[in-house]
Amino acid sequence: MEIVLIGSGGVATHLGLAFKAKGIKISQVFSRDAANAENLAKKLETSFITDISELYMNADFYIYALKDSALKYFLKKMNMPDGIQIHTAGSLPMSDFEGYTTQYGVFYPLQTFSIPKPVNFSHVPICIEACNMEVLDKINNLAKLLSDNVHIIDSEQRKKLHLAAVFACNFTNYMYDISFQILEDSGINFELLKPLIFETSNKIKTVEPYAAQTGPAVRFDEKTIDRHLRMLNKYPDIKKIYNLLSKDIYKRHKKQ
Amino acid sequence: MEIVLIGSGGVATHLGLAFKAKGIKISQVFSRDAANAENLAKKLETSFITDISELYMNADFYIYALKDSALKYFLKKMNMPDGIQIHTAGSLPMSDFEGYTTQYGVFYPLQTFSIPKPVNFSHVPICIEACNMEVLDKINNLAKLLSDNVHIIDSEQRKKLHLAAVFACNFTNYMYDISFQILEDSGINFELLKPLIFETSNKIKTVEPYAAQTGPAVRFDEKTIDRHLRMLNKYPDIKKIYNLLSKDIYKRHKKQ
Repeated sequence: MEIVLIGSGGVATHLGLAFKAKGIKISQVFSRDAANAENLAKKLETSFITDISELYMNADFYIYALKDSALKYFLKKMNMPDGIQIHTAGSLPMSDFEGYTTQYGVFYPLQTFSIPKPVNFSHVPICIEACNMEVLDKINNLAKLLSDNVHIIDSEQRKKLHLAAVFACNFTNYMYDISFQILEDSGINFELLKPLIFETSNKIKTVEPYAAQTGPAVRFDEKTIDRHLRMLNKYPDIKKIYNLLSKDIYKRHKKQ
Repeated sequence: MEIVLIGSGGVATHLGLAFKAKGIKISQVFSRDAANAENLAKKLETSFITDISELYMNADFYIYALKDSALKYFLKKMNMPDGIQIHTAGSLPMSDFEGYTTQYGVFYPLQTFSIPKPVNFSHVPICIEACNMEVLDKINNLAKLLSDNVHIIDSEQRKKLHLAAVFACNFTNYMYDISFQILEDSGINFELLKPLIFETSNKIKTVEPYAAQTGPAVRFDEKTIDRHLRMLNKYPDIKKIYNLLSKDIYKRHKKQ
């Protein structure tokens, strides 16, 4: 089996490394950024191109791991190979491939990919979708090579999942980042907060987030909230976030 | 050694159970709420009172795990015992004890305490402070019974830690709760998101939150952000949060 990777960012890198580790040949890497393309091609021991017209035509799968806005741009320019075309985007519908190819689908790994940190795919949910059952079966087999947690999810549901993931991952990480800034400015080591962060995520293994909610907002401890807001006077953006989230947590727990 | 617990909420419960497991005698539980007091006293195999004038006078430590606003209320009303008085609040200064006793300090476990889930204290950071070195030594020995992660932190720094913890724990959990709501309304099982949540917290073991930031906001993917905002039209409060956090993430990553 042969795979071509279209893209050279976090998703392309981690998928490429994971497939390579399973003994699958990455036949080519494409990226407009020559340095990124070369860098990833080296890691995957393969060749790279920066001009889509030089695309290798005989791969089984073409995996698009691009900025969302770039997918259609390349589909329009490409000489379409016969292999199965799959994108990895949470928020793009499968129908973006319509009219360009008859063998297509989606392979959405529900995970966060920062280049410095390796990802173990074995339990990562991979949400797949395809234009027909035959292609679905092939994408399913591809996904099962990496993970024991493959789900068939349509484009509408995938959009919802992606939106939920922004809160559960991107915004959560931003909460960590804010706490990091507050501690850094006071010369306190962020290490001190880590056990709390791990316990907070660990709790949802056994308790729904609604029931796990703690803190001044849920007990409507106005004095503490006011004290915190005053402490945040020199961080007006963070203060706005504190205020909005506290009000919403209170509202959600009051009304039920 | 004998301990009296003033309070019967999450912190009092988990501390009481942890001390009991270490063979330390909880001599009494006080709470104005008779049902809560009785419930906790049963778990700790001890007696309870609901009238502070009946306080047991011969304990070594009196641990206050109360709503912040209640501490001074009880200090004013109490007949002060000779033992060491310690509170467990992140945001109250140690000086709240001044004038009521000469042996006092703080014992702040930096952890989230939901009653249904047991807490393993062995690596929980316990931030301690005391009115003098002799008392500090005693509180330190008490803390070391539960945890290998004891830190001497003054009231100013503890306030900052507590504020940072609201973001890293309470607001993070609220992000989980929002993602739960979005999935629930679409009939998608929250289980699908859990690996992402665990990886998001796990990443900070090796990567600073700033470098770990991913998502549409940090790559300024306006199309995805707009699509998400439209999907949130029926959740006006959540939409406001999405908008504010996306703008701030973009701002933070643009300016550096």
